[in-house]
Parts: sequence; C-alpha cells; structure tokens
Amino acid sequence: MLAPVTEVEYGEDDLLALNLAGNAAWPSFAEELEALTGLPAGLHRTGTLSVAYDADDAAAIRRLAEYQRRLGLEVEELTGRETRKREPLLAAGVTAGVWVPGDHSVNNRQTVAALLRAVELSGVTLIKQSVSRILIDGSKAVGVELDNGDTIHAEHIIAAAGPWTAQLNGIPDELRPPVRPLKGEILRLRVPKAYRPALQHTVRATARGFSVYLVPRPDGELVVGATTSELGYDTRVLAGGVFTLLRDARMVLPITDELELVETVAGLRPATPDNAPVLGASGLDGLLWATGHYRNGVLLTPITAQVIAETVRTGVLPKLAEPFLADRFSRGDRAHGSAGAVPKVMG
Amino acid sequence: MLAPVTEVEYGEDDLLALNLAGNAAWPSFAEELEALTGLPAGLHRTGTLSVAYDADDAAAIRRLAEYQRRLGLEVEELTGRETRKREPLLAAGVTAGVWVPGDHSVNNRQTVAALLRAVELSGVTLIKQSVSRILIDGSKAVGVELDNGDTIHAEHIIAAAGPWTAQLNGIPDELRPPVRPLKGEILRLRVPKAYRPALQHTVRATARGFSVYLVPRPDGELVVGATTSELGYDTRVLAGGVFTLLRDARMVLPITDELELVETVAGLRPATPDNAPVLGASGLDGLLWATGHYRNGVLLTPITAQVIAETVRTGVLPKLAEPFLADRFSRGDRAHGSAGAVPKVMG
Repeated sequence: MLAPVTEVEYGEDDLLALNLAGNAAWPSFAEELEALTGLPAGLHRTGTLSVAYDADDAAAIRRLAEYQRRLGLEVEELTGRETRKREPLLAAGVTAGVWVPGDHSVNNRQTVAALLRAVELSGVTLIKQSVSRILIDGSKAVGVELDNGDTIHAEHIIAAAGPWTAQLNGIPDELRPPVRPLKGEILRLRVPKAYRPALQHTVRATARGFSVYLVPRPDGELVVGATTSELGYDTRVLAGGVFTLLRDARMVLPITDELELVETVAGLRPATPDNAPVLGASGLDGLLWATGHYRNGVLLTPITAQVIAETVRTGVLPKLAEPFLADRFSRGDRAHGSAGAVPKVMG
Repeated sequence: MLAPVTEVEYGEDDLLALNLAGNAAWPSFAEELEALTGLPAGLHRTGTLSVAYDADDAAAIRRLAEYQRRLGLEVEELTGRETRKREPLLAAGVTAGVWVPGDHSVNNRQTVAALLRAVELSGVTLIKQSVSRILIDGSKAVGVELDNGDTIHAEHIIAAAGPWTAQLNGIPDELRPPVRPLKGEILRLRVPKAYRPALQHTVRATARGFSVYLVPRPDGELVVGATTSELGYDTRVLAGGVFTLLRDARMVLPITDELELVETVAGLRPATPDNAPVLGASGLDGLLWATGHYRNGVLLTPITAQVIAETVRTGVLPKLAEPFLADRFSRGDRAHGSAGAVPKVMG
C-alpha cells in the first residue's frame, strides 16, 4: 500500500511529510522505470477506502479523519451506505468509511522485477553475495567483505540491509542503528472471474479493533495483510496469523470465504523504536544508512533513492530527511516529530 | 483416521460392520505391506479421543457414547479434567471426552507409496493413463479404452475410479452408480520440537456444533481436517475452508496458533446417497464396482481388496459386502441398514 494518509499515526508529523513526499514521487518514478525497462512498475492508482466494522471502529476512523483533515489531508467521510455503494461486496455490517483518493497500491513483485531489469540496463554490476563485514579504516568505511571472502573497496557504501542492518559486522556497537525484524504474514487470494472485481479500491478495514488491508490487483488477485509479530527472524507462516487475517477479512468482505487461498507468506519488516526510517550519516565517513523503513519500504523507495543519491552527490542530506538521522536515537531526543514540516496536532 | 467407532452414525449398522471389519483388517495388512516392501505402511496406533467444547457438544458426544455402548463398542466416557489429563494441551474449556482405544490413524501418503512399491514388486503392470471408455459387448464389459487411444481387453474389470466413477463412458445410464464428488479441505501443521508431542492421540472434536479432527504424526506433523463442500469437482483451497478448520482447531487446541501452516490441500471424496460404498456386481458381466467409499477410503482399503478379490476368484460377493451392491439404489430400498450384522438401535 502507498498509504501515507490512510495510515497516518497521531504525532508522527515528520514521518507523514516524508511519506507524502514518497507518495508524490511514485508516479514519475513508475513512469521512468516503465519507460526504461518496458516492464510494469506495479503502481495501481485506485484510491483507498478506509472502512469500519462496528460502532467503536467507526468512532476510531472518524477521529482519525478529523485529524487527517486538520493536517490538510484529502479525506471524505462516508456513511455505511455510501461506503457500500463504492464497494458493494462489503459486509452489510460496515458502519462507516473514509475515502482517501490519494492513497494507492503497488505490486511490489513487479516493482522489484522492473528495478532488477533497470539495474541491468544501466550497467550496474550486481553481486549476489551477503556482506560478512564492513571494512573500517580509522573513522572511515572503505569497503565490504563478502561471504565468499572477496573484498570490495568503495568510496561510498550505502547500507540498505533492512532488518539485518544491525547485524552487520565491523560497525562499532554505538553506531549500530536500532533496527529489528518485525514479522508479518500476508495472504494472496484469487477472485474467481464471476466475482471480479471483488473490490475496486484498496480497502483498509478496522474490524472489532483489528486492522486488516485488502488490496485488489488487476489480475484478480486480492492481497490480505498483515500481521505484526515480535518473533525475531522467524519467517514461518503460523496458523494463528492466517486465522487472524481470514477472520478480519471475512468480517468486512464476506465473499472472502469463496476465494481461493493461493499463497501464504511471512516476511520481516525493518522496524525502529519510532517507526521511522534511518537515513543518511552513519557516524563513519563513507557509510550511509538507508534502512529501518518498517511498513513503508515500497512507499519510500523513490524518495529514499533521491535523498541518498543527493547526499552522495552533494555531501548534504536533504532537509526533508534530517529528522531521520541515526543519531536521533543517541541524542536522548526521540521525539523527532517535533520539527515537522506539517503542523503538530495531537489526536 | 481409522475411526469406525468414533465416527459411527445413527442407523448405519451395516456400514459399521464393514468399517469394523476394515479396521480389524488393517494391522495384518500393514504388516504384510511392510514385510513385502520394507516401507512404512503408515499405520499409527494411538487410540482416539473424542472431545467436546461446550455443554451442547458434551451432550452430543455423551449421547453418541451411549449408542456406541449399546452397539457393544469399546468406549470410555471421561470428564473434562480426565480428558485434559490425557491431552494436557487441550483447551481449559473442553468439557467432556470419550476415549476410543480401537480407533487409530494412517499416514495415507505412506500407504500409497508402499502400495505402489508392492505393485511393482508383485509384477503388476501399472499403466498411468485415464480410461476414456469401458468397452461393452452385449451385456458384458470386455475391456477399456485409454486416453491415448489404446485398448486393453480383460476378463475382469474393477472400476475404482472414486468420484469420477459416474463419469465413465460406455456404462448404460441406468447402471451408473450415484457417486458424486464431495470436496474436503485439510491442513498440515508443523509442531515445533519444543511443543512435541502437541497431541499423543488422534483427537476428534465437536466444537460449538462443528466437527474437526486433529491427527498427530510421529514426525511432528499435525493434520487438521476436514471440510465438506458440495462444489462438484472444484479442488481449489478456499479461504472459508481454511478459516473454518483453524477456528475449530484452535478452539479445542489453542496452541494451534503457534504451529506452522505447512500445507493446505483440497480433495474429492466419492460420496453416495447413503454414505456407504458401492461394491461388487455392476449389472454388466466382467465389471465390478469398488467405489463410493466417501470418507472411509483408507479405512476400507484392505477389506475392499479382500472382498473384491474373493468375488473375482469365486464369483460370489462375501456376505459382509451384500448391503453395498449398486442395485440398492434402484430397488427403491435405500434402508440398507435393515439387514445389519449388529443389532439395529435408533440413536
């Protein structure tokens, strides 16, 4: 999901600004990627419908809609009937909705395939090896050692190792960013032709206090996500995760029961203490962080690339990214939301 | 499951007799198969614990236990506490149990692998082709035509085509047995080493009126089944089926949530109007039915083989199998339970 508005959290104003910039960067990024590769970039512009199941859920999404409006974000509150009019297969019990026209979705598998092709076409050398160690000379990172024993020296190293970032060898402990794995399970369902499209927009539901999203794909796939489990690097798909997703999805979209369960997968998000990424200076010359994107890795792909490329070129991190420097975790100042580009409003 | 006692249905007395004979035939069948092939036959003798979740469920299994006792079957009624003592990971809410020492389980994949090996070792020619047509000469079946156009002539043809039996070409309509596909989904879960064995016996649960079984395998697998859907030849795994199984399994075995979901599969049972198999004479000389085993295909494998082999050898169907002749569906006499080998008792 590209959902900076739908998924805004109270008080995370700097992150909202970054997420909005990320969302804004997507259309031209997708165009450029498709023009270069001839492959689909995966962007699917449908808008997002936030829906509530019971009265408590409705109160929660209405309160959030008020916050979103105060932030100047484009949202439209809907009654249950108006919500079902936009998505007729939603449960009769759906009590309220919020229409977010600017939030979309991306088929991340298509994006990755197109990016790999773009890398190839741009003459980049891709070395498919794990990094066993960052090589340090004094206060400068000078290269990496690979799992096969090879070393590569480089003037600029960008560590984008996601949930494995904190495990990179060679980094002094005090400079390791607090990035941890946060497990998530998702399901891929298939909508039979007779029922298509089961949904026309991305649906983000609050169902008896639980969150679930349903992302329709043009080919009839419906992606249902996502669980959140603090289980370290465990990537087993657990029965409890699948149960929770199905329970919540069928509550708001009863036809879920009739869809084929095609795939269950578990992945790891790179989470940080404040849910925001870690961008820019690492404390070692020559090494930049581009990690900790938590649930927003796809949303922030274009803007992260822009920010980091500019930093490499100019030596200066763009202002937008300043709140996300790694040193915020050691400054005793975790309230990075205080210097936001949008007015700070408590929810 | 080899569960003639646990799964007995009121009034199906002839079928019970056949199922008990099937169960009794299993140990020597497994021994013979293992001696011949050196492969495991898959028989797992653990006994079966029938458990009830709420008070209504308890009333249902107690009423069935009374019926089972009147039929002379070996069952032992347990309190909730006694039930949990036998299976400590069962939910605290489990209210009652019935211990069935003679019902066991079979790893059907192992059985099939061993049978294929036995076929090979016995000099049988296995032709992996679909039958497109039964060849008829007057009132006699004389062979089959295969999908690749080949024909095979034979003195005896045994049609064991499961849910596809009624679709065999060449059979006069009035002789087709009323066998239909009845879809079922099952799940395979994996118990982590730390929790093994999650269950020591096969558990058949009645949970808020729904039935679910949990079959532990020696290697740490836990099989959860099975749904029942009248969806023709559809073998898609549906989200609703997976949801139902997980909902019921976790109700009686909460640790289900922590188990890996390894596999979801859907299959077709060959169902008949009275849930009993179709054995013996087809109405065409040279053609015997061995089909319609519904949920008891594995349980009835050895006894079906014995019965059909004896019929081929002697020309006479053993008495035990007489109630399962195909002509019962055209005699206007569907109450095949009336000629049972065990006393008829209404539940």
